[in-house]
Amino acid sequence: MITSDSNPKLRYVQHLSRRAFRQREGRMLLEGLRLVEAALDAGHRPAFSLASDLLDASARGAALRSRLIEAGAPPIPVADALLRQVGDTQHGQGLLAVLPIPELPLPDRPSLLLLLDGLRDPGNLGTALRSADAAGVDAVLLSPGTVDWSNAKVVRAAMGAHFHVPVRQLSWAGIDSLLAELEPRPSLWLAEAGGRLAHSEVDWRAPSLLVIGGEAAGPSAEARARATDSLRIRMPGRAESLNAAGAAAVILFEALRQRAEA
Amino acid sequence: MITSDSNPKLRYVQHLSRRAFRQREGRMLLEGLRLVEAALDAGHRPAFSLASDLLDASARGAALRSRLIEAGAPPIPVADALLRQVGDTQHGQGLLAVLPIPELPLPDRPSLLLLLDGLRDPGNLGTALRSADAAGVDAVLLSPGTVDWSNAKVVRAAMGAHFHVPVRQLSWAGIDSLLAELEPRPSLWLAEAGGRLAHSEVDWRAPSLLVIGGEAAGPSAEARARATDSLRIRMPGRAESLNAAGAAAVILFEALRQRAEA
Repeated sequence: MITSDSNPKLRYVQHLSRRAFRQREGRMLLEGLRLVEAALDAGHRPAFSLASDLLDASARGAALRSRLIEAGAPPIPVADALLRQVGDTQHGQGLLAVLPIPELPLPDRPSLLLLLDGLRDPGNLGTALRSADAAGVDAVLLSPGTVDWSNAKVVRAAMGAHFHVPVRQLSWAGIDSLLAELEPRPSLWLAEAGGRLAHSEVDWRAPSLLVIGGEAAGPSAEARARATDSLRIRMPGRAESLNAAGAAAVILFEALRQRAEA
Repeated sequence: MITSDSNPKLRYVQHLSRRAFRQREGRMLLEGLRLVEAALDAGHRPAFSLASDLLDASARGAALRSRLIEAGAPPIPVADALLRQVGDTQHGQGLLAVLPIPELPLPDRPSLLLLLDGLRDPGNLGTALRSADAAGVDAVLLSPGTVDWSNAKVVRAAMGAHFHVPVRQLSWAGIDSLLAELEPRPSLWLAEAGGRLAHSEVDWRAPSLLVIGGEAAGPSAEARARATDSLRIRMPGRAESLNAAGAAAVILFEALRQRAEA
Protein backbone atom coordinates (compact mmCIF):
# COMPACT_ATOMS: atom_id res chain seq x y z
CA MET A 1 0.00 0.00 0.00
CA ILE A 2 1.23 3.49 -0.91
CA THR A 3 1.61 5.47 2.33
CA SER A 4 4.04 8.22 1.28
CA ASP A 5 3.11 11.33 -0.63
CA SER A 6 6.45 11.20 -2.43
CA ASN A 7 5.40 8.02 -4.19
CA PRO A 8 5.96 8.48 -7.96
CA LYS A 9 2.41 7.40 -8.92
CA LEU A 10 0.89 9.87 -6.50
CA ARG A 11 3.14 12.63 -7.72
CA TYR A 12 2.22 11.77 -11.31
CA VAL A 13 -1.47 12.13 -10.46
CA GLN A 14 -0.80 15.48 -8.80
CA HIS A 15 1.06 16.71 -11.88
CA LEU A 16 -2.03 15.87 -13.96
CA SER A 17 -3.70 18.94 -12.46
CA ARG A 18 -1.40 20.93 -14.78
CA ARG A 19 -2.51 21.39 -18.36
CA ALA A 20 1.02 21.27 -19.80
CA PHE A 21 1.69 17.96 -18.06
CA ARG A 22 -1.61 16.45 -19.27
CA GLN A 23 -0.82 17.48 -22.83
CA ARG A 24 2.74 16.16 -22.71
CA GLU A 25 1.55 12.86 -21.28
CA GLY A 26 -1.69 12.68 -23.26
CA ARG A 27 -3.47 11.58 -20.11
CA MET A 28 -6.14 12.88 -17.80
CA LEU A 29 -7.54 12.08 -14.36
CA LEU A 30 -10.88 10.43 -13.57
CA GLU A 31 -12.23 10.55 -10.06
CA GLY A 32 -15.05 8.54 -8.55
CA LEU A 33 -17.06 5.47 -9.50
CA ARG A 34 -19.38 6.89 -12.13
CA LEU A 35 -16.72 8.36 -14.39
CA VAL A 36 -14.55 5.28 -14.28
CA GLU A 37 -17.56 3.06 -14.98
CA ALA A 38 -18.54 5.27 -17.92
CA ALA A 39 -15.01 5.08 -19.33
CA LEU A 40 -14.94 1.27 -19.10
CA ASP A 41 -18.48 1.02 -20.49
CA ALA A 42 -17.32 2.91 -23.57
CA GLY A 43 -14.28 0.68 -24.02
CA HIS A 44 -11.60 3.04 -22.69
CA ARG A 45 -8.81 1.48 -20.72
CA PRO A 46 -7.06 3.33 -17.87
CA ALA A 47 -3.26 3.43 -17.82
CA PHE A 48 -3.44 2.74 -14.08
CA SER A 49 -5.76 3.30 -11.14
CA LEU A 50 -5.39 4.02 -7.45
CA ALA A 51 -7.87 3.01 -4.76
CA SER A 52 -8.27 3.15 -1.02
CA ASP A 53 -10.20 0.69 1.16
CA LEU A 54 -13.20 2.95 0.65
CA LEU A 55 -13.67 1.44 -2.82
CA ASP A 56 -14.80 -1.86 -1.31
CA ALA A 57 -17.33 -0.21 0.99
CA SER A 58 -20.05 -0.80 -1.63
CA ALA A 59 -20.89 -3.73 -3.89
CA ARG A 60 -20.70 -1.28 -6.78
CA GLY A 61 -17.16 -0.32 -5.81
CA ALA A 62 -16.12 -3.95 -5.43
CA ALA A 63 -17.56 -4.80 -8.85
CA LEU A 64 -15.66 -1.88 -10.36
CA ARG A 65 -12.44 -3.18 -8.80
CA SER A 66 -13.00 -6.47 -10.66
CA ARG A 67 -13.64 -4.66 -13.91
CA LEU A 68 -10.43 -2.65 -13.50
CA ILE A 69 -8.49 -5.85 -12.92
CA GLU A 70 -9.97 -7.33 -16.11
CA ALA A 71 -9.11 -4.15 -17.99
CA GLY A 72 -5.46 -4.53 -16.99
CA ALA A 73 -5.50 -1.59 -14.56
CA PRO A 74 -5.84 -3.23 -11.13
CA PRO A 75 -6.22 -0.54 -8.44
CA ILE A 76 -2.97 0.16 -6.63
CA PRO A 77 -3.73 0.40 -2.90
CA VAL A 78 -3.29 3.86 -1.37
CA ALA A 79 -4.03 5.11 2.14
CA ASP A 80 -7.36 6.93 1.97
CA ALA A 81 -6.05 10.19 3.47
CA LEU A 82 -3.35 10.33 0.78
CA LEU A 83 -5.79 9.61 -2.03
CA ARG A 84 -7.98 12.47 -0.88
CA GLN A 85 -4.98 14.79 -0.95
CA VAL A 86 -4.18 14.15 -4.60
CA GLY A 87 -7.81 14.05 -5.75
CA ASP A 88 -9.71 17.12 -6.82
CA THR A 89 -12.95 16.56 -4.86
CA GLN A 90 -13.73 16.23 -1.20
CA HIS A 91 -15.70 13.03 -1.61
CA GLY A 92 -13.64 10.96 -4.00
CA GLN A 93 -15.22 7.56 -3.30
CA GLY A 94 -11.74 6.08 -2.91
CA LEU A 95 -10.93 5.76 -6.62
CA LEU A 96 -8.77 7.62 -9.13
CA ALA A 97 -7.92 6.43 -12.62
CA VAL A 98 -5.49 7.83 -15.16
CA LEU A 99 -6.84 7.60 -18.69
CA PRO A 100 -5.27 8.35 -22.07
CA ILE A 101 -7.08 11.46 -23.32
CA PRO A 102 -9.65 9.99 -25.74
CA GLU A 103 -9.24 10.65 -29.45
CA LEU A 104 -12.43 9.27 -30.90
CA PRO A 105 -12.58 9.22 -34.70
CA LEU A 106 -14.78 11.72 -36.46
CA PRO A 107 -17.72 10.11 -38.26
CA ASP A 108 -17.54 9.94 -42.04
CA ARG A 109 -20.26 12.39 -42.91
CA PRO A 110 -20.96 14.51 -39.83
CA SER A 111 -24.23 16.41 -40.03
CA LEU A 112 -24.40 18.17 -36.65
CA LEU A 113 -21.35 19.71 -35.03
CA LEU A 114 -20.76 22.10 -32.17
CA LEU A 115 -17.97 24.65 -31.92
CA LEU A 116 -17.42 25.99 -28.39
CA ASP A 117 -15.61 29.26 -28.83
CA GLY A 118 -13.83 30.72 -25.82
CA LEU A 119 -15.68 29.09 -22.92
CA ARG A 120 -13.51 29.84 -19.91
CA ASP A 121 -15.41 28.23 -17.07
CA PRO A 122 -14.65 24.50 -16.63
CA GLY A 123 -18.14 23.79 -15.29
CA ASN A 124 -19.74 25.49 -18.30
CA LEU A 125 -17.57 23.64 -20.78
CA GLY A 126 -18.29 20.32 -19.07
CA THR A 127 -22.02 20.97 -19.04
CA ALA A 128 -21.95 22.00 -22.71
CA LEU A 129 -20.14 18.76 -23.57
CA ARG A 130 -22.79 16.85 -21.61
CA SER A 131 -25.51 18.58 -23.64
CA ALA A 132 -23.66 17.76 -26.86
CA ASP A 133 -23.42 14.13 -25.78
CA ALA A 134 -27.13 13.97 -24.96
CA ALA A 135 -27.96 15.51 -28.32
CA GLY A 136 -25.71 13.02 -30.08
CA VAL A 137 -23.70 15.60 -32.01
CA ASP A 138 -21.11 14.12 -34.35
CA ALA A 139 -18.21 16.12 -32.95
CA VAL A 140 -17.33 19.10 -30.79
CA LEU A 141 -14.59 21.53 -31.77
CA LEU A 142 -12.95 23.76 -29.18
CA SER A 143 -11.37 27.01 -30.32
CA PRO A 144 -8.21 28.54 -28.86
CA GLY A 145 -9.09 30.36 -25.65
CA THR A 146 -11.48 27.64 -24.55
CA VAL A 147 -10.57 25.98 -21.27
CA ASP A 148 -8.74 22.66 -21.67
CA TRP A 149 -11.27 19.85 -21.89
CA SER A 150 -9.02 17.39 -20.01
CA ASN A 151 -9.28 19.56 -16.87
CA ALA A 152 -10.72 17.48 -13.99
CA LYS A 153 -13.60 19.94 -13.40
CA VAL A 154 -14.58 19.75 -17.07
CA VAL A 155 -14.41 15.96 -16.97
CA ARG A 156 -16.63 15.84 -13.89
CA ALA A 157 -19.29 18.19 -15.26
CA ALA A 158 -19.32 16.43 -18.64
CA MET A 159 -20.54 13.20 -16.99
CA GLY A 160 -18.94 10.86 -19.52
CA ALA A 161 -19.15 12.96 -22.69
CA HIS A 162 -15.37 12.59 -23.03
CA PHE A 163 -15.84 8.88 -23.73
CA HIS A 164 -18.67 9.26 -26.26
CA VAL A 165 -18.16 12.37 -28.35
CA PRO A 166 -15.18 13.13 -30.60
CA VAL A 167 -13.69 16.40 -29.37
CA ARG A 168 -10.88 18.37 -31.01
CA GLN A 169 -9.07 21.28 -29.38
CA LEU A 170 -7.61 23.18 -32.33
CA SER A 171 -6.04 26.33 -33.61
CA TRP A 172 -8.15 28.29 -36.10
CA ALA A 173 -5.93 26.95 -38.88
CA GLY A 174 -6.65 23.47 -37.56
CA ILE A 175 -10.38 24.19 -37.50
CA ASP A 176 -10.18 25.46 -41.09
CA SER A 177 -8.46 22.36 -42.36
CA LEU A 178 -10.82 20.06 -40.48
CA LEU A 179 -13.84 21.86 -41.94
CA ALA A 180 -12.32 21.87 -45.42
CA GLU A 181 -12.24 18.10 -45.36
CA LEU A 182 -15.88 17.69 -44.41
CA GLU A 183 -18.18 16.47 -47.13
CA PRO A 184 -20.78 17.92 -47.33
CA ARG A 185 -19.48 21.18 -45.88
CA PRO A 186 -21.72 22.29 -42.99
CA SER A 187 -23.19 25.78 -42.61
CA LEU A 188 -21.67 27.66 -39.69
CA TRP A 189 -24.38 29.16 -37.50
CA LEU A 190 -23.23 31.78 -35.03
CA ALA A 191 -25.41 32.09 -31.93
CA GLU A 192 -25.55 35.64 -30.58
CA ALA A 193 -27.99 38.08 -29.05
CA GLY A 194 -28.64 40.04 -32.26
CA GLY A 195 -28.60 37.04 -34.62
CA ARG A 196 -30.52 37.29 -37.92
CA LEU A 197 -32.87 34.30 -37.61
CA ALA A 198 -34.65 32.87 -34.58
CA HIS A 199 -33.07 29.52 -33.77
CA SER A 200 -36.27 27.71 -34.70
CA GLU A 201 -36.35 29.44 -38.12
CA VAL A 202 -33.04 27.88 -39.16
CA ASP A 203 -33.31 24.79 -41.35
CA TRP A 204 -31.40 22.29 -39.22
CA ARG A 205 -31.99 19.37 -41.55
CA ALA A 206 -28.95 20.52 -43.55
CA PRO A 207 -25.44 19.72 -42.27
CA SER A 208 -24.75 22.33 -39.61
CA LEU A 209 -22.12 23.52 -37.24
CA LEU A 210 -23.38 25.57 -34.29
CA VAL A 211 -21.00 28.14 -32.80
CA ILE A 212 -21.53 29.03 -29.13
CA GLY A 213 -19.35 31.83 -27.76
CA GLY A 214 -17.86 32.33 -24.32
CA GLU A 215 -19.69 33.54 -21.23
CA ALA A 216 -18.44 37.11 -21.29
CA ALA A 217 -17.10 37.93 -24.74
CA GLY A 218 -19.50 35.98 -26.97
CA PRO A 219 -18.24 34.56 -30.29
CA SER A 220 -14.70 35.56 -31.31
CA ALA A 221 -13.76 37.63 -34.34
CA GLU A 222 -12.31 34.46 -35.87
CA ALA A 223 -15.60 32.60 -35.49
CA ARG A 224 -17.51 35.58 -36.85
CA ALA A 225 -15.30 35.72 -39.94
CA ARG A 226 -16.08 32.07 -40.71
CA ALA A 227 -19.82 32.15 -40.00
CA THR A 228 -22.34 31.44 -42.74
CA ASP A 229 -25.08 33.27 -40.87
CA SER A 230 -26.23 34.11 -37.34
CA LEU A 231 -29.13 33.11 -35.13
CA ARG A 232 -30.59 34.19 -31.83
CA ILE A 233 -32.75 32.53 -29.21
CA ARG A 234 -35.87 34.63 -28.75
CA MET A 235 -36.05 35.61 -25.08
CA PRO A 236 -39.47 36.83 -24.04
CA GLY A 237 -38.29 37.22 -20.45
CA ARG A 238 -36.03 39.80 -18.91
CA ALA A 239 -32.80 37.82 -18.63
CA GLU A 240 -30.20 38.97 -21.13
CA SER A 241 -29.08 35.49 -22.06
CA LEU A 242 -28.95 31.82 -21.24
CA ASN A 243 -25.65 30.40 -20.09
CA ALA A 244 -23.54 28.84 -22.81
CA ALA A 245 -24.45 25.23 -22.01
CA GLY A 246 -28.16 26.10 -21.83
CA ALA A 247 -28.06 27.94 -25.15
CA ALA A 248 -26.29 25.00 -26.78
CA ALA A 249 -28.89 22.58 -25.41
CA VAL A 250 -31.86 24.67 -26.55
CA ILE A 251 -30.53 25.02 -30.10
CA LEU A 252 -29.24 21.45 -30.52
CA PHE A 253 -32.53 19.96 -29.35
CA GLU A 254 -34.44 22.20 -31.74
CA ALA A 255 -32.22 20.79 -34.50
CA LEU A 256 -33.09 17.27 -33.37
CA ARG A 257 -36.79 18.10 -33.23
CA GLN A 258 -36.73 19.29 -36.83
CA ARG A 259 -34.81 16.22 -37.94
CA ALA A 260 -37.19 13.86 -36.12
CA GLU A 261 -40.15 15.57 -37.83
CA ALA A 262 -38.56 15.46 -41.26
CA MET B 1 -14.99 54.14 7.42
CA ILE B 2 -15.61 50.72 8.96
CA THR B 3 -12.24 49.26 9.92
CA SER B 4 -13.22 46.68 12.55
CA ASP B 5 -14.64 43.26 11.83
CA SER B 6 -16.80 43.53 14.94
CA ASN B 7 -18.80 46.32 13.31
CA PRO B 8 -22.53 45.43 13.57
CA LYS B 9 -23.22 45.97 9.85
CA LEU B 10 -20.36 43.67 8.86
CA ARG B 11 -21.51 41.03 11.31
CA TYR B 12 -25.04 41.34 9.95
CA VAL B 13 -23.75 40.68 6.43
CA GLN B 14 -21.80 37.67 7.66
CA HIS B 15 -24.91 36.27 9.34
CA LEU B 16 -26.70 36.47 5.98
CA SER B 17 -24.67 33.46 4.87
CA ARG B 18 -26.98 31.45 7.16
CA ARG B 19 -30.34 30.43 5.77
CA ALA B 20 -32.17 30.75 9.11
CA PHE B 21 -30.91 34.31 9.52
CA ARG B 22 -31.93 35.26 5.96
CA GLN B 23 -35.39 33.89 6.51
CA ARG B 24 -35.81 35.59 9.88
CA GLU B 25 -34.67 38.90 8.44
CA GLY B 26 -36.28 38.45 5.02
CA ARG B 27 -33.10 39.76 3.44
CA MET B 28 -30.36 38.46 1.18
CA LEU B 29 -26.92 39.56 0.03
CA LEU B 30 -25.95 40.92 -3.39
CA GLU B 31 -22.31 41.08 -4.38
CA GLY B 32 -20.74 42.95 -7.27
CA LEU B 33 -21.82 45.62 -9.69
CA ARG B 34 -23.99 43.65 -12.08
CA LEU B 35 -26.35 42.19 -9.50
CA VAL B 36 -26.82 45.50 -7.71
CA GLU B 37 -27.45 47.25 -11.03
CA ALA B 38 -29.99 44.60 -12.02
CA ALA B 39 -31.78 44.98 -8.69
CA LEU B 40 -32.01 48.76 -9.06
CA ASP B 41 -33.03 48.46 -12.73
CA ALA B 42 -35.96 46.31 -11.65
CA GLY B 43 -37.01 48.79 -8.97
CA HIS B 44 -35.72 46.94 -5.91
CA ARG B 45 -34.26 49.03 -3.14
CA PRO B 46 -31.44 47.77 -0.92
CA ALA B 47 -31.80 48.10 2.86
CA PHE B 48 -28.19 49.24 2.96
CA SER B 49 -24.97 48.82 1.04
CA LEU B 50 -21.27 48.63 1.85
CA ALA B 51 -18.47 49.69 -0.45
CA SER B 52 -14.70 50.01 -0.46
CA ASP B 53 -12.62 52.48 -2.46
CA LEU B 54 -12.51 49.86 -5.19
CA LEU B 55 -16.06 50.85 -6.19
CA ASP B 56 -14.83 54.17 -7.53
CA ALA B 57 -12.08 52.59 -9.61
CA SER B 58 -14.43 52.52 -12.63
CA ALA B 59 -16.91 55.01 -14.05
CA ARG B 60 -19.50 52.27 -13.85
CA GLY B 61 -18.83 51.82 -10.13
CA ALA B 62 -18.98 55.54 -9.50
CA ALA B 63 -22.30 55.78 -11.37
CA LEU B 64 -23.67 52.94 -9.29
CA ARG B 65 -22.65 54.77 -6.12
CA SER B 66 -24.79 57.71 -7.25
CA ARG B 67 -27.73 55.43 -7.98
CA LEU B 68 -27.45 53.87 -4.53
CA ILE B 69 -27.47 57.30 -2.93
CA GLU B 70 -30.62 58.19 -4.91
CA ALA B 71 -32.20 54.90 -3.84
CA GLY B 72 -31.67 55.80 -0.19
CA ALA B 73 -28.93 53.23 0.37
CA PRO B 74 -25.69 55.26 0.17
CA PRO B 75 -22.70 52.90 0.38
CA ILE B 76 -21.19 52.80 3.84
CA PRO B 77 -17.39 52.97 3.49
CA VAL B 78 -15.52 49.81 4.51
CA ALA B 79 -11.83 48.96 4.28
CA ASP B 80 -11.41 46.77 1.21
CA ALA B 81 -9.69 43.88 3.04
CA LEU B 82 -12.64 43.71 5.46
CA LEU B 83 -15.22 43.77 2.69
CA ARG B 84 -13.51 40.87 0.99
CA GLN B 85 -13.65 38.91 4.23
CA VAL B 86 -17.41 39.15 4.58
CA GLY B 87 -18.16 38.67 0.88
CA ASP B 88 -18.65 35.31 -0.74
CA THR B 89 -16.43 35.77 -3.81
CA GLN B 90 -12.76 36.49 -4.28
CA HIS B 91 -13.32 39.37 -6.65
CA GLY B 92 -16.13 41.32 -5.10
CA GLN B 93 -15.65 44.58 -7.02
CA GLY B 94 -15.85 46.48 -3.72
CA LEU B 95 -19.62 46.41 -3.33
CA LEU B 96 -22.13 44.49 -1.22
CA ALA B 97 -25.81 45.31 -0.87
CA VAL B 98 -28.42 43.87 1.46
CA LEU B 99 -31.78 43.50 -0.25
CA PRO B 100 -35.19 42.49 1.07
CA ILE B 101 -35.87 39.06 -0.46
CA PRO B 102 -38.14 39.92 -3.43
CA GLU B 103 -41.78 38.84 -3.28
CA LEU B 104 -43.01 39.66 -6.74
CA PRO B 105 -46.76 39.22 -7.26
CA LEU B 106 -47.97 36.27 -9.28
CA PRO B 107 -49.61 37.30 -12.55
CA ASP B 108 -53.38 37.00 -12.74
CA ARG B 109 -53.65 34.17 -15.21
CA PRO B 110 -50.29 32.39 -15.35
CA SER B 111 -49.94 30.14 -18.36
CA LEU B 112 -46.38 28.81 -18.00
CA LEU B 113 -44.93 27.84 -14.64
CA LEU B 114 -41.89 25.91 -13.49
CA LEU B 115 -41.65 23.74 -10.40
CA LEU B 116 -38.07 22.94 -9.36
CA ASP B 117 -38.30 19.87 -7.21
CA GLY B 118 -35.38 18.99 -4.98
CA LEU B 119 -32.49 20.77 -6.74
CA ARG B 120 -29.67 20.66 -4.22
CA ASP B 121 -26.85 22.40 -6.01
CA PRO B 122 -26.92 26.22 -5.71
CA GLY B 123 -25.31 26.69 -9.12
CA ASN B 124 -27.91 24.46 -10.77
CA LEU B 125 -30.80 26.22 -9.08
CA GLY B 126 -29.41 29.62 -10.05
CA THR B 127 -28.91 28.57 -13.66
CA ALA B 128 -32.42 27.09 -13.81
CA LEU B 129 -33.83 30.39 -12.50
CA ARG B 130 -31.83 32.22 -15.16
CA SER B 131 -33.34 29.94 -17.83
CA ALA B 132 -36.82 30.56 -16.41
CA ASP B 133 -36.19 34.29 -16.52
CA ALA B 134 -35.01 34.14 -20.14
CA ALA B 135 -38.07 32.11 -21.07
CA GLY B 136 -40.34 34.59 -19.32
CA VAL B 137 -42.15 32.02 -17.19
CA ASP B 138 -44.91 33.47 -15.05
CA ALA B 139 -43.61 32.00 -11.80
CA VAL B 140 -41.23 29.43 -10.35
CA LEU B 141 -42.23 27.22 -7.44
CA LEU B 142 -39.58 25.53 -5.30
CA SER B 143 -40.51 22.35 -3.45
CA PRO B 144 -39.22 21.39 0.01
CA GLY B 145 -35.74 19.90 -0.33
CA THR B 146 -34.73 22.48 -2.94
CA VAL B 147 -31.78 24.63 -1.93
CA ASP B 148 -32.74 28.05 -0.56
CA TRP B 149 -33.02 30.51 -3.41
CA SER B 150 -31.71 33.43 -1.33
CA ASN B 151 -28.33 31.66 -1.01
CA ALA B 152 -25.57 33.91 -2.41
CA LYS B 153 -24.37 31.25 -4.89
CA VAL B 154 -27.91 30.87 -6.25
CA VAL B 155 -28.27 34.64 -6.54
CA ARG B 156 -25.01 34.88 -8.44
CA ALA B 157 -25.79 32.10 -10.93
CA ALA B 158 -29.33 33.41 -11.49
CA MET B 159 -27.94 36.66 -12.95
CA GLY B 160 -30.88 38.83 -11.89
CA ALA B 161 -33.75 36.32 -12.13
CA HIS B 162 -34.53 37.06 -8.49
CA PHE B 163 -35.60 40.57 -9.48
CA HIS B 164 -37.74 39.57 -12.46
CA VAL B 165 -39.51 36.29 -11.78
CA PRO B 166 -41.97 35.58 -8.96
CA VAL B 167 -40.54 32.68 -6.95
CA ARG B 168 -42.24 30.83 -4.09
CA GLN B 169 -40.47 28.38 -1.80
CA LEU B 170 -43.34 26.32 -0.39
CA SER B 171 -44.42 23.19 1.44
CA TRP B 172 -46.42 20.72 -0.64
CA ALA B 173 -49.55 21.92 1.13
CA GLY B 174 -48.57 25.44 0.11
CA ILE B 175 -48.03 24.34 -3.48
CA ASP B 176 -51.45 22.64 -3.47
CA SER B 177 -53.25 25.73 -2.26
CA LEU B 178 -51.40 27.97 -4.71
CA LEU B 179 -52.29 25.67 -7.61
CA ALA B 180 -55.91 25.39 -6.43
CA GLU B 181 -56.29 29.15 -6.80
CA LEU B 182 -55.00 29.25 -10.37
CA GLU B 183 -57.59 29.85 -13.03
CA PRO B 184 -57.36 28.09 -15.45
CA ARG B 185 -55.69 25.22 -13.63
CA PRO B 186 -52.43 24.23 -15.43
CA SER B 187 -51.51 20.70 -16.42
CA LEU B 188 -48.58 19.38 -14.39
CA TRP B 189 -45.94 17.87 -16.68
CA LEU B 190 -43.34 15.73 -14.98
CA ALA B 191 -40.00 15.58 -16.83
CA GLU B 192 -38.26 12.23 -16.38
CA ALA B 193 -36.19 9.75 -18.36
CA GLY B 194 -39.08 7.35 -19.04
CA GLY B 195 -41.76 10.00 -19.60
CA ARG B 196 -44.77 9.14 -21.77
CA LEU B 197 -44.55 11.85 -24.44
CA ALA B 198 -41.55 13.43 -26.09
CA HIS B 199 -41.30 17.03 -24.88
CA SER B 200 -42.08 18.31 -28.36
CA GLU B 201 -45.26 16.19 -28.54
CA VAL B 202 -46.80 17.96 -25.55
CA ASP B 203 -49.29 20.72 -26.40
CA TRP B 204 -47.66 23.64 -24.64
CA ARG B 205 -50.26 26.17 -25.79
CA ALA B 206 -52.43 25.11 -22.85
CA PRO B 207 -51.63 26.45 -19.35
CA SER B 208 -48.78 24.29 -18.11
CA LEU B 209 -46.58 23.71 -15.13
CA LEU B 210 -43.31 21.93 -15.85
CA VAL B 211 -41.79 19.85 -13.04
CA ILE B 212 -38.01 19.39 -13.11
CA GLY B 213 -36.58 17.04 -10.48
CA GLY B 214 -33.27 17.14 -8.63
CA GLU B 215 -29.86 16.15 -9.97
CA ALA B 216 -29.64 12.75 -8.32
CA ALA B 217 -33.11 11.67 -7.21
CA GLY B 218 -35.29 13.03 -10.02
CA PRO B 219 -38.86 14.15 -9.28
CA SER B 220 -40.12 13.44 -5.76
CA ALA B 221 -42.99 11.11 -4.86
CA GLU B 222 -45.02 14.20 -3.95
CA ALA B 223 -44.50 15.72 -7.40
CA ARG B 224 -45.28 12.41 -9.05
CA ALA B 225 -48.56 12.12 -7.13
CA ARG B 226 -49.67 15.51 -8.41
CA ALA B 227 -48.57 15.11 -12.04
CA THR B 228 -51.10 15.20 -14.88
CA ASP B 229 -48.72 13.32 -17.18
CA SER B 230 -45.03 12.81 -17.88
CA LEU B 231 -42.66 13.75 -20.67
CA ARG B 232 -39.11 12.92 -21.68
CA ILE B 233 -36.50 14.66 -23.77
CA ARG B 234 -35.47 12.30 -26.55
CA MET B 235 -31.71 11.78 -26.26
CA PRO B 236 -30.20 10.30 -29.40
CA GLY B 237 -26.74 10.50 -27.86
CA ARG B 238 -25.20 8.39 -25.15
CA ALA B 239 -25.48 10.75 -22.18
CA GLU B 240 -28.11 9.62 -19.70
CA SER B 241 -29.53 13.06 -19.11
CA LEU B 242 -29.13 16.79 -19.37
CA ASN B 243 -28.49 18.69 -16.18
CA ALA B 244 -31.58 20.15 -14.53
CA ALA B 245 -31.10 23.70 -15.82
CA GLY B 246 -30.43 22.46 -19.35
CA ALA B 247 -33.51 20.24 -19.34
CA ALA B 248 -35.65 23.13 -18.10
CA ALA B 249 -34.29 25.39 -20.85
CA VAL B 250 -34.86 22.85 -23.63
CA ILE B 251 -38.47 22.23 -22.60
CA LEU B 252 -39.42 25.82 -21.80
CA PHE B 253 -38.08 27.07 -25.13
CA GLU B 254 -40.00 24.34 -26.97
CA ALA B 255 -43.11 25.62 -25.19
CA LEU B 256 -42.30 29.14 -26.38
CA ARG B 257 -41.68 27.93 -29.92
CA GLN B 258 -45.10 26.31 -30.04
CA ARG B 259 -46.76 29.41 -28.64
CA ALA B 260 -44.98 31.69 -31.11
CA GLU B 261 -46.15 29.48 -33.98
CA ALA B 262 -49.74 29.31 -32.73
